[in-house]
Amino acid sequence: MPFLADLFEHGLLVETGVPGVYGHGREFERVRLGFDDLVTRAAAADEPERLRFPPVVPRRQLERAGFFNSFPHLVGTVFALQGDDLQERATELALLPAACYPVYPSVAARGPLTRDGLTIDTGPAYVFRHEPSDDPGRLQSFHMRELVRLGAPETVHSWQWSWRDRALELLRRLGLAAEADVGADPFFGRAGKILADSQREQQLKFEILAPIDGPTAIASFNYHQEHFSSTYGIELEGGGAAHTACLGFGHERIVLALLRQHGLDIDDWPGEVRSELAL
Amino acid sequence: MPFLADLFEHGLLVETGVPGVYGHGREFERVRLGFDDLVTRAAAADEPERLRFPPVVPRRQLERAGFFNSFPHLVGTVFALQGDDLQERATELALLPAACYPVYPSVAARGPLTRDGLTIDTGPAYVFRHEPSDDPGRLQSFHMRELVRLGAPETVHSWQWSWRDRALELLRRLGLAAEADVGADPFFGRAGKILADSQREQQLKFEILAPIDGPTAIASFNYHQEHFSSTYGIELEGGGAAHTACLGFGHERIVLALLRQHGLDIDDWPGEVRSELAL
Repeated sequence: MPFLADLFEHGLLVETGVPGVYGHGREFERVRLGFDDLVTRAAAADEPERLRFPPVVPRRQLERAGFFNSFPHLVGTVFALQGDDLQERATELALLPAACYPVYPSVAARGPLTRDGLTIDTGPAYVFRHEPSDDPGRLQSFHMRELVRLGAPETVHSWQWSWRDRALELLRRLGLAAEADVGADPFFGRAGKILADSQREQQLKFEILAPIDGPTAIASFNYHQEHFSSTYGIELEGGGAAHTACLGFGHERIVLALLRQHGLDIDDWPGEVRSELAL
Repeated sequence: MPFLADLFEHGLLVETGVPGVYGHGREFERVRLGFDDLVTRAAAADEPERLRFPPVVPRRQLERAGFFNSFPHLVGTVFALQGDDLQERATELALLPAACYPVYPSVAARGPLTRDGLTIDTGPAYVFRHEPSDDPGRLQSFHMRELVRLGAPETVHSWQWSWRDRALELLRRLGLAAEADVGADPFFGRAGKILADSQREQQLKFEILAPIDGPTAIASFNYHQEHFSSTYGIELEGGGAAHTACLGFGHERIVLALLRQHGLDIDDWPGEVRSELAL
């Protein structure tokens, strides 16, 4: 039986009639929330500030940050039945494509950062990518929990590299065959290939992969250099643009990788994994 | 200072540039999550089954349930840049307008219910209503936590009435001047007025109100009779259509009512309220 059908059969995911949009059954949620708590504990040493944003975001903000140019094929926008004729017309909103987007303008509004800067924890945000598929590892709507680091270049750089090891260790403790690799974003079109090659060459993105149906990115690290700080004006005290980086955990993919590794009956998982996840 | 500006000033809410779409600061989230846990404890006696759904839902499902007819002015639909020309075109998805909508078809798919039926806990779902406003009590995107009861008419009816008292007691323990009242949904247009009058007359909806800027519904009970069970075919073992009812808590409104009642500095709230919310 294909994996997706097996997940429905066991009540782990719930069909809605649209590919890539599923409900979560009780056991799936138990694992997901257990993993979320594990990240909270692992991130405590960073003393992150919790900020939470809705699954909709000003469309203008995504345009300004370049999302519409780089990933037009993934964008979701919000329409509403407007006017006396109740016709569907565009609103000011789009669907949030990654948890960290709203963080940058809101931190910029606070004024300059110290060189040590700060760490923001977005909590598990529901994000959207328009890529309908029957692959359970490629959802249209899924939870992304992001840690965002903003500060002086050396601070942000060393934070990102330390988290590469911490995240690998955390995921391997769960019994996953997790491996880090350099990655690239799915930029659109021919110009996108050049962007992706440059991203790879500069090692601005790396991912942690684990098997679902083949190796799948379950966590992703992006080093943005001055991209967001120059867009929004995030400066350092004493002058200079801040650097930013983020680390995103894909909740649903991590649960799926765990189900692939340890089986669909959570009560049969190894004791140490259940203990890590407080199951 | 208007309440909304005061909330921004204190970092409780975070501006995004679109009215009714705000981020939550750390302290707002602490209260919200504390309240969510309180509902979990209060609902434990019902032994609810946790099912969670994304903030997007098949558009067809909302059409089938009558949402487009009854509340066209509140609908949000999802468009994507599609085709070789990347034009914005409608997808199969709409934004979830209430946490309970996806519950009914998924329970229907399981087959007939016992007369005692079951209780579903949706967890805190992000829902959307297209009604841009500067009133912090009227958000476009907010958390709704719903308990949904499905079963024989007498079971569902008595569950709803028992929760009226339990919810009032729970909210009053938090120091809120909470009062129950018969309510009606904001049905669209002239025909909508007739629907709302009939709903009021049959006492199918009641709300718990507390002051924010004036009395505001912070929890809402809807008795659907056979509306959803006849739409989706939710039947009872031995024959007959199930009844359904739901109780929704509006997380953000409840936090706002608490901030109005006890002040913007959570550390100064009464000890018994902080203890209830584990703050």
